[in-house]
Amino acid sequence: MYVSGEVREHVRMRALVQSLPRSSLQQNEVAESDAELVRIPGTDLLLAITTDAVVEEIDTGLYRDPYLIGWMTVVVSASDLAAVGADPLGILLNQTLPCGIEPEFQNELQRGIGQACSAFGIFPLGGDVNESNRLHMASTAAGTVPDGEAMLRSGARPGDHLFITGPAGAGNAFAFEVLSDDREVPRLVYRPRARLREGLLLRRFASACMDTSDGLIATLDELMRRSGFGLQLEPNSVDLLQPQARALAREAGIPAFVFLAGPHGEFELVFSIPPERLSEFRAEAIAAGLSISRLGVARQRPGLQLSEREGGAWLDTAGVRNLAYERPRDLDEFVTRLVALTRPDY
Amino acid sequence: MYVSGEVREHVRMRALVQSLPRSSLQQNEVAESDAELVRIPGTDLLLAITTDAVVEEIDTGLYRDPYLIGWMTVVVSASDLAAVGADPLGILLNQTLPCGIEPEFQNELQRGIGQACSAFGIFPLGGDVNESNRLHMASTAAGTVPDGEAMLRSGARPGDHLFITGPAGAGNAFAFEVLSDDREVPRLVYRPRARLREGLLLRRFASACMDTSDGLIATLDELMRRSGFGLQLEPNSVDLLQPQARALAREAGIPAFVFLAGPHGEFELVFSIPPERLSEFRAEAIAAGLSISRLGVARQRPGLQLSEREGGAWLDTAGVRNLAYERPRDLDEFVTRLVALTRPDY
Repeated sequence: MYVSGEVREHVRMRALVQSLPRSSLQQNEVAESDAELVRIPGTDLLLAITTDAVVEEIDTGLYRDPYLIGWMTVVVSASDLAAVGADPLGILLNQTLPCGIEPEFQNELQRGIGQACSAFGIFPLGGDVNESNRLHMASTAAGTVPDGEAMLRSGARPGDHLFITGPAGAGNAFAFEVLSDDREVPRLVYRPRARLREGLLLRRFASACMDTSDGLIATLDELMRRSGFGLQLEPNSVDLLQPQARALAREAGIPAFVFLAGPHGEFELVFSIPPERLSEFRAEAIAAGLSISRLGVARQRPGLQLSEREGGAWLDTAGVRNLAYERPRDLDEFVTRLVALTRPDY
Repeated sequence: MYVSGEVREHVRMRALVQSLPRSSLQQNEVAESDAELVRIPGTDLLLAITTDAVVEEIDTGLYRDPYLIGWMTVVVSASDLAAVGADPLGILLNQTLPCGIEPEFQNELQRGIGQACSAFGIFPLGGDVNESNRLHMASTAAGTVPDGEAMLRSGARPGDHLFITGPAGAGNAFAFEVLSDDREVPRLVYRPRARLREGLLLRRFASACMDTSDGLIATLDELMRRSGFGLQLEPNSVDLLQPQARALAREAGIPAFVFLAGPHGEFELVFSIPPERLSEFRAEAIAAGLSISRLGVARQRPGLQLSEREGGAWLDTAGVRNLAYERPRDLDEFVTRLVALTRPDY
């Protein structure tokens, strides 16, 4: 059973924030929610605000298509706003463009930004543009949540039902295809959505919520730590996989579970619903056309376990998260170690 | 008289935003204010939000001291919040750190961030950290302003009195010293402040406001264009210069006015006060301990002119702004061209 492993991301975060003062208006602890939550004096609203950069994905060549880069620059922060259940006010873009950028590349970048904003229902407000010798993109999304209604990563209790807003694994399957084939145009289309509309419904029911930007296993690990629960996944966890991702795993001869465990997520929302709200939530989710899958029921016993029918293995979720920090030499080594970490330990 | 020159920054900005949708909640036109202003539904407040990156200053070696880099990462966006007169809610940091960064360097970076936040009265709320092969820092500051009280760059009228919150030229003098001497430790200490407290007082009186992040001349050019006025500077404009900057110009044998014209600013606020509010403003400014200097009185006739006592030259303010875009080969060429642009044209 793996429950006490330290997550290196947490160590780095503590080192960065330890010396910084903290506002008495801020409602969340460090990394307790996908977006920062600050009381707006004179109102009963919280400001939800979050910033994210697209760096490693550009550096490693994972994102090359400028339209995708623009699209993802919006997704990374808009999705965090969705996970706290905020009404979006808008998004700021921070673009550092290479000197002498091709006009066609720049147009595609802006087209991706504009279409992602329209698709998620969030408006670009402005931003900052600089020149350098490489492309660096970031965004900041802001919105409001009525005080007391924001979703945190903490708050889930044993007995709550865990769900996800859509199929998982597309992000890792995309990364596997791009990095193993070194293809300019991967067959798998990766176009995640920031679940802003879903977040507004969820905030009325969910006890906790987080997006799967770092992959499903990392998300569950964080929710379990923050809220204090354990989880045994439903039987047939492989059914959670997006069909194209499942097909790619079969074709490549690797365990499909790896695509749930890898660090390149799909920006779905993982959330918990208390049992007494379940039937009302289901009715509204169906009425709203939400397609959700149940991951399991939170329990006291810590750690993440496969179903008995799938062998009942405990997953080293801290190990999975830290693997992304250890920067394995190549994709083969990464996949091999990920397989080892998500295999039975007994 | 130079009034119609096109500013290249405006051309670039139009190209970037032309295809993007715009929120009906947004109160400012593109670049009409230092921060974006968005109505918060259900309240009588505007969200003021702004993002800025520190890129060229790191790339060119202008900022090397990690404490200064951290400090400036806060200044760049907090100062924009000051210029619209916002009550700060907090600031997000976007840090892309080089792999294998020295702990001492990282600590100094965080110390600069923390001390700048404390000095200006704004709290760090959180942020995003990534790794890459180079340092890239950005921040986003957010606050609120009562609807109708935000300061824009437009709004000044002929007859209004133009002021600046402190001496100018320290930014350009610092840049000149670092880039000409290639000194690790410049004698001139550059530590600009985000004028958040001043902004709160100014928003009750000023008809327009903007910070001097790009230097005094660029700021005046933008205010004149947005508001539609011209200005003849007060006699002895050299008195506006920070004393150390003036001494450095004398020592280096260059016209001191160059330090008012260069693109590396000092983050003071330039603002306009309508004549009927002048005496009340002066009384409050004195009571608050503000040290302000008058730049001149806005007039109908467009363009920026030196006083008759200083020769009455018209300044090519668009040319000054575009010079920074043309990336002159070296500092000597830059200074030579800047001197030519700020010299009489008759």
